[in-house]
Amino acid sequence: MDEIIKNVRIDPSRLERYVETLGGIGLQAGGGIVRPVYSLAWVEARKQLAEWMSAAGLEVREDAVGNLFGRLRGTVDDTRTILTGSHIDTVKLGGRFDGALGVLSALVALQALREQEGQPLRSLEMVALCEEEGSRFQAHYWGTRAMLGLIRDGEPGTLQDDDGISIAGAMQAAGLSPERYREAKRHDLDAFLELHIEQGRILFDEKIDIGIVETITGIHRQLVTVTGRSDHAGTTPMDLRRDAFQGAAQMAVEITRMVEQEGRPAVVTMGKWDIRPGAINVVPGEVRFSIDLRHPEEGTKQRLVEAMRTRCETIAEERGLAVSIEITGNSLPAQMDSRLQHKLITAAEARGATWRLMPSGAGHDSELMARRVPTAMLFVPSVEGRSHSAAEYTLLEDAVRGASVLATALYQLGY
Amino acid sequence: MDEIIKNVRIDPSRLERYVETLGGIGLQAGGGIVRPVYSLAWVEARKQLAEWMSAAGLEVREDAVGNLFGRLRGTVDDTRTILTGSHIDTVKLGGRFDGALGVLSALVALQALREQEGQPLRSLEMVALCEEEGSRFQAHYWGTRAMLGLIRDGEPGTLQDDDGISIAGAMQAAGLSPERYREAKRHDLDAFLELHIEQGRILFDEKIDIGIVETITGIHRQLVTVTGRSDHAGTTPMDLRRDAFQGAAQMAVEITRMVEQEGRPAVVTMGKWDIRPGAINVVPGEVRFSIDLRHPEEGTKQRLVEAMRTRCETIAEERGLAVSIEITGNSLPAQMDSRLQHKLITAAEARGATWRLMPSGAGHDSELMARRVPTAMLFVPSVEGRSHSAAEYTLLEDAVRGASVLATALYQLGY
Repeated sequence: MDEIIKNVRIDPSRLERYVETLGGIGLQAGGGIVRPVYSLAWVEARKQLAEWMSAAGLEVREDAVGNLFGRLRGTVDDTRTILTGSHIDTVKLGGRFDGALGVLSALVALQALREQEGQPLRSLEMVALCEEEGSRFQAHYWGTRAMLGLIRDGEPGTLQDDDGISIAGAMQAAGLSPERYREAKRHDLDAFLELHIEQGRILFDEKIDIGIVETITGIHRQLVTVTGRSDHAGTTPMDLRRDAFQGAAQMAVEITRMVEQEGRPAVVTMGKWDIRPGAINVVPGEVRFSIDLRHPEEGTKQRLVEAMRTRCETIAEERGLAVSIEITGNSLPAQMDSRLQHKLITAAEARGATWRLMPSGAGHDSELMARRVPTAMLFVPSVEGRSHSAAEYTLLEDAVRGASVLATALYQLGY
Repeated sequence: MDEIIKNVRIDPSRLERYVETLGGIGLQAGGGIVRPVYSLAWVEARKQLAEWMSAAGLEVREDAVGNLFGRLRGTVDDTRTILTGSHIDTVKLGGRFDGALGVLSALVALQALREQEGQPLRSLEMVALCEEEGSRFQAHYWGTRAMLGLIRDGEPGTLQDDDGISIAGAMQAAGLSPERYREAKRHDLDAFLELHIEQGRILFDEKIDIGIVETITGIHRQLVTVTGRSDHAGTTPMDLRRDAFQGAAQMAVEITRMVEQEGRPAVVTMGKWDIRPGAINVVPGEVRFSIDLRHPEEGTKQRLVEAMRTRCETIAEERGLAVSIEITGNSLPAQMDSRLQHKLITAAEARGATWRLMPSGAGHDSELMARRVPTAMLFVPSVEGRSHSAAEYTLLEDAVRGASVLATALYQLGY
C-alpha cells in the first residue's frame, strides 16, 4: 500500500471550547440539554455553528429542511463531495456529546486541514444533520431522508409534535422552507463519514481508543400481550390460577437466556410493562410488554424472532394463557463500506490509536445514508457507557484522538 | 350424639326479594354497587334492612358506630347472646352477595325460626356489621373492632377518607355518635356465626354445597425493590447488563414455584409492579413489586417468608443486583371454634347438603371476632369464583341451602 498517511494536528482547546459552548445551548437549570429539532435552542445552536464554520473558512449554506453545510471546495474536482458530520438535536435532558461531537469533530478536522494543508483536490464538506433523535417529531433521520429523497408527499404537513404543531409549521417558524424540501436532495455524495460516541461501554471497559463500525444493527420490535384471568389473591388456589404475569415473566427470562446464549452482539430488552389490574390482592389477568431485539445480521435476527415466538407460544400453552404478538418495527442491519473502514483503520494506526471492529447497537443517520452512499462510522469511548443523560461524558483526549483520525481519513480521501 | 336436628324451612322468594332489593341500593348505571360505609347508599340500605327486621318481629337497635342489630329474646336466658351476620358495605363496583348474603341469610333464618318455632330459649341476634371492606377508610372490621373494644383513642378523629373527611365526621353525617364509640363494646357474646360467599371457585368446581371454615388465613405482605442499572438497549451487551426486571421476574417465578410446591392452601400473588424507567429502548434499572402470601398456619407462613427472602437475596447476588424488602403487613391466622364447626356440619348433614372443611383465603370480620368470641363461618359457592365485581353471583338454591343450614345451627344453639 502506498497511501499517504498524514497526521493532522487537532487543537484540543479549540475542540473543548466548541463542545462547552454548544453544550450550553439548551442546557437546563438542573442539568441535561433540551434541544429538539426546530426549537429556539436548536436555531441558536445552528447560528453559533454557522459562525464558527464561516470563521474557519468554510462556505456555509443550509438546505430547505435545515441541514447546515460547510464546504472546502476541491481544486481539481468540485462536482462530487466527501461528506462528514452528525446531528445537533438532542433527546430530552440529553448530554453534550451525542451527535454534537460528530459535528464539532468534522468542524475542527476541516478547519485543521485548511490551516495545515490548504484547499483539497476533491471537495470536502461537513454537515450538521437535521433531526436524528426523533425526540420532538416521530421523524428520525429527517435531514438524511431529505438528502436521499426519502420524505414522502404530504409528510411535512401531517407529522405533528405533542403540541399538534406540524413539522412543516415548525420548519417555517425556524425560518426554513418546508415547501421546497425536495430541493434538499443530493446527487453528488461520494462518501459519508460519521464520528459518534459509542454510547456503550465496550471501548471504555477494554481501554480501546477507536471503534470502527462494521454494521449498524437491525432493530426488531414487538408488543407481546399475555392474557390469563384476574382472580382473588386469597381465595384462588395456585393450581386454579391463570396468572398472566407468571407466563410473561417466564417468557422474559427465557428469551433473555436464549439471547445471552446466542452471545455478543445479540441484545434483547424487555423495557416497557403494563400489568393489569395492578393491585396487591388481585392475580394479574393481562400483561403487555415490549421486546427490542437487535442483531447486525438479519438472518440471525429473524431466527431469534422465530425462536422467541415459538417460546412464547409454548409457555402460554403450558400455562393455559393466550398470547398475541404485534410486530411494531423491523429495521434491516446496514453494512458500512469496507474501503472507508480501511481508511479509518489506516488513519487510526497512523495516529497510534488502538482500535477494534464492532457493530453499532444504536441507530444513526449513517444507517440510512449507507443504503445510498458509501458510509463509515468511528466511535470514541463513552465514560462508563453513559449516554442520553446529563452524565454522558467523553474525555477530551479521546475526543481529540477521534477528530484527528477523522481528519487523517479525510486527508487521504480529499488531498 | 343426642342433638335435636330440626330442618328449618327458608322461603326462597323471600330471600331472593331481599337480595335483589338490597342489591339495587348503590347500584351504578353501568353495573356494580358502590356502597361504602356511612355513605348515603349505606344509610339507605340500613334503613331498608331495619324495616325488614322490624316486620320480621325482631327488636331492632343500632350501636354508636352503626352496627345494626335485630334480636329474638330468649325466654330462659336473655343475658347472653348468640350472634350471626356479616356486612353491607361494598367495595367500589362490588356485587350483591359479598357480605349482604350473610346479613340477609341471618334475617331470613331468624324470621323463619320465629315463624316456625316461636321465641328461643337463649337470645339470638343478627347484625349488619359496620365497614368490613375498608373501601372508604382504612378501617377494616370497624364495627367488629367497636364491639370488641379495639378502637384506639383518637382514631375516629384522625382516620380520613380520600376527601379528607374523618371517620368521626362521616359517622356524624350518617346520624351516629362517634363520641360514644366505647359504648358499642359487647360483653355478652357466646358465639358468632357468619355465612359468606366463598369468593373462590373450590366449592363451585367440586360441586360441594357448603364450606365449613377451619381457619381464616394469615396474610403477609411485602414490597420488594430490586435495583440494577438502566442502560441503552442497543449499546450494552447482555453480559454487561444489570437488568433489574430480569432479577425480579426470576424472583417472582421461583417464589411462585416454591409456593406451588408447598401445595394448597398456600397462595402467593405478585400483583402490583412498577418497572422503571419503563421505556422500550432502556434496560430496566429499578423494579418494585408487591408480594401477598397467605397461609392458615403461621409457622408455615413464616417458613415461606424466610425462604422467599433467601431466594430473593441469592438471585440478586447472582445477578449483581441489590434487593430490599419492606414488610407492609402481617396478620395472624384465626382458628374457628371446633364446637361451632361441628354444629354447622351437623346442620349441613341434616339438610342433606354436601360439605367440606376448608380455610378462608380472604379476610372477614370473623377473623377478628374469633380472637375474643367462639366463631364459625360457612361458605356458599360463588359461580366461577367471581367476586368483588358486578359478575359476582351465587345461585338462589345455594343461598337458600346456606341460610337453611345457618338456621338449623341457630336452632341447635338457641332452642
